[in-house]
Amino acid sequence: MKNPNIVILGAGYGGMMTTVKLQKSLGVNEANITLVNMNDYHYQTTWLHENAAGTLHHDRTRIPIKDVINMSKVNFIQDKVVSIKPEIKKVKLENRDLEYDVLVIGLGFEAATFGIPGLEEHAFTIGSINSARLIREHIEYNFALYNNEKEKKQARLNIVVGGGGFTGIEFLGELANRIPELCEEFDIDKNLVRIINVEGSPTVLPGFDPELVEYALNSLESRGVEFVTNAMLKECTPESITYEKDGELTQVPTLTTVWAAGVRANSIVEKSGFETNRGKVEVRKDMRTPDFDNVFVIGDCALIMNPENGRPYPPTAQIAIQQSDVVAHNVKALVSGGEAEEFEPKILGTVASLGHDDAIGVVLNNQKIFGWKATVMKKIIDNRYLLKLGGVGLLLKKGKFNIFY
Amino acid sequence: MKNPNIVILGAGYGGMMTTVKLQKSLGVNEANITLVNMNDYHYQTTWLHENAAGTLHHDRTRIPIKDVINMSKVNFIQDKVVSIKPEIKKVKLENRDLEYDVLVIGLGFEAATFGIPGLEEHAFTIGSINSARLIREHIEYNFALYNNEKEKKQARLNIVVGGGGFTGIEFLGELANRIPELCEEFDIDKNLVRIINVEGSPTVLPGFDPELVEYALNSLESRGVEFVTNAMLKECTPESITYEKDGELTQVPTLTTVWAAGVRANSIVEKSGFETNRGKVEVRKDMRTPDFDNVFVIGDCALIMNPENGRPYPPTAQIAIQQSDVVAHNVKALVSGGEAEEFEPKILGTVASLGHDDAIGVVLNNQKIFGWKATVMKKIIDNRYLLKLGGVGLLLKKGKFNIFY
Repeated sequence: MKNPNIVILGAGYGGMMTTVKLQKSLGVNEANITLVNMNDYHYQTTWLHENAAGTLHHDRTRIPIKDVINMSKVNFIQDKVVSIKPEIKKVKLENRDLEYDVLVIGLGFEAATFGIPGLEEHAFTIGSINSARLIREHIEYNFALYNNEKEKKQARLNIVVGGGGFTGIEFLGELANRIPELCEEFDIDKNLVRIINVEGSPTVLPGFDPELVEYALNSLESRGVEFVTNAMLKECTPESITYEKDGELTQVPTLTTVWAAGVRANSIVEKSGFETNRGKVEVRKDMRTPDFDNVFVIGDCALIMNPENGRPYPPTAQIAIQQSDVVAHNVKALVSGGEAEEFEPKILGTVASLGHDDAIGVVLNNQKIFGWKATVMKKIIDNRYLLKLGGVGLLLKKGKFNIFY
Repeated sequence: MKNPNIVILGAGYGGMMTTVKLQKSLGVNEANITLVNMNDYHYQTTWLHENAAGTLHHDRTRIPIKDVINMSKVNFIQDKVVSIKPEIKKVKLENRDLEYDVLVIGLGFEAATFGIPGLEEHAFTIGSINSARLIREHIEYNFALYNNEKEKKQARLNIVVGGGGFTGIEFLGELANRIPELCEEFDIDKNLVRIINVEGSPTVLPGFDPELVEYALNSLESRGVEFVTNAMLKECTPESITYEKDGELTQVPTLTTVWAAGVRANSIVEKSGFETNRGKVEVRKDMRTPDFDNVFVIGDCALIMNPENGRPYPPTAQIAIQQSDVVAHNVKALVSGGEAEEFEPKILGTVASLGHDDAIGVVLNNQKIFGWKATVMKKIIDNRYLLKLGGVGLLLKKGKFNIFY
């Protein structure tokens, strides 16, 4: 009898953890496990803002897949997914086609620019190692150009961050720490640099505890970040952005707009004919698609409603990692028998960093934390993931242990 | 009686060493010494190619003027020289005017592009800390962009160096070492990168010993540098350069052209009405201008003929530093009495580095050296200068001691 083919698409938090669990729970005689990913590395999406600001090298954020996956148990294919054909159980990659018996879709997110003119063409997004290090280099390059031009261009020193959500705020925190270093590096008066956050809601970090939001604003404003709330981005050009606030249009000259205000599920999912809700697959309790019994969806491509508030759970690393427990269990149950489990999210807490030396968060029982304590908690969360993913070896190699400065 | 005003323009090798010597030899009751420089730092022009390639940080190359000059003995003015009016003994700076009794002109060089179309606008030059670190950032930025574009642009990975003279060759050596590191940093196959040297003469390093030139070519070619000799640059655009060789035009797509094939004396000298030869002042044997008894010229702005071959001595750091002995002595003689000295260049040897781990050179008695021995000699020359300029303290801070790798 032929072994079933289990194909996992995407080596993000969900896909990677599912693969690691399956390679432990399934013997090579029970199933063929194939992992498909565009790059030969996995990366921690939640650290990319640090790479973008230049406060952490991107090699700290990425992990070679071969360092975590046992290549004698898992067939790794470096390729790009083009489309999925669930009716005929096939996946089309750029360079080949794959057949599967069981599929796990963990293709992550892409930026959503909501049709705002110029944003897709001229704004940067923090979505991958490539895009994050480009932001770092772009800011540095403009700082280097500044003193080389007779006519000084303020737009080179204005950095606009669109969106005051989680990613936006965390990026601002790193940037605020990085700018004084960059000014020293390029002989620029740091008072000339402007970091401007444009947020559509009345407050940044909507949904977060107001006291903690206040703390975050104070922390960032004291380091020079300007906040413009209740403001909608209207246009982005190569040399400026325009926002509308209180019915008035304001144009800010800038060569660096970072769009951190919108993500959507990878559009391959919708294009492949799955039933979707806001671009995501509203999965069954066992993480399978409504219409295909052999297809699981995990992470940012999966939609799960929170019955308490009638809104979807946010697309976080925490939830994707929790889902991998259920997905790995249920995939094994499907190919070698056993009871399926149901997914039940457990929100253990949320911590937003404000640079390496400050953070805010809500942990178990809604306890608020901030400052040093919160930065330590953030690092514990990050380190716990590395331990789960690759054991002590990976933790020691890529963990964050600088908790005392 | 009023103390005479000694004004030194430019804190390059010549101006800086002259100032250091005068602050030792002249008491504050004998003369007022004023040093004028655009930046508040001195830099080692002969190290800039390393900053441009990214193999040495520019802070290693520059030295804060206050670290070397005793500010209680020397009046330092950070300003830009606009013009000199020797008839009325005045110097016009951007922000003020200065009167002098004795003037030392050490205003260095600027790039000469010989009217080649587009070169001034689109090519980079290695002439200052600002321009050197811009080259570093420009190359990095293009490497960062490469993987972010759907349509890969080879022009981002082609680097053209115009000129195979001293600076060109030394820059190529650093670049050849740096590129593999950059490829790793930005996930680029290093076989895709092209480094192309375009030289008008039949050989690079014209005038150098042919055996050493052969050695240099082998060293650089083995690290991927391509040489096109007997070729004239015809045009530089933002996205390409065109050269002519054997009557044929070749266009190379590139976003990075570094022009290292021509320098001329600072044009302020010519514009200020001094008698010049090829833009330089052909100084008397005591380093004074032919027409003004109270004006000395040092370094790249001074022209001294070599009677042995009827050609001017090359504008090198070595000669500028030697001249400072004579200039400092003669300035003192002029203001407080004594015999003037005549300048006699002593060419102690020339070493061209080919990266941190290789070099070629000719030392005393025309002895040829290459490889490790030559790299050590190069570092000894560099370190000797630091010792002369700022003593053991400066040597330990900025010296090059990594001779064993």
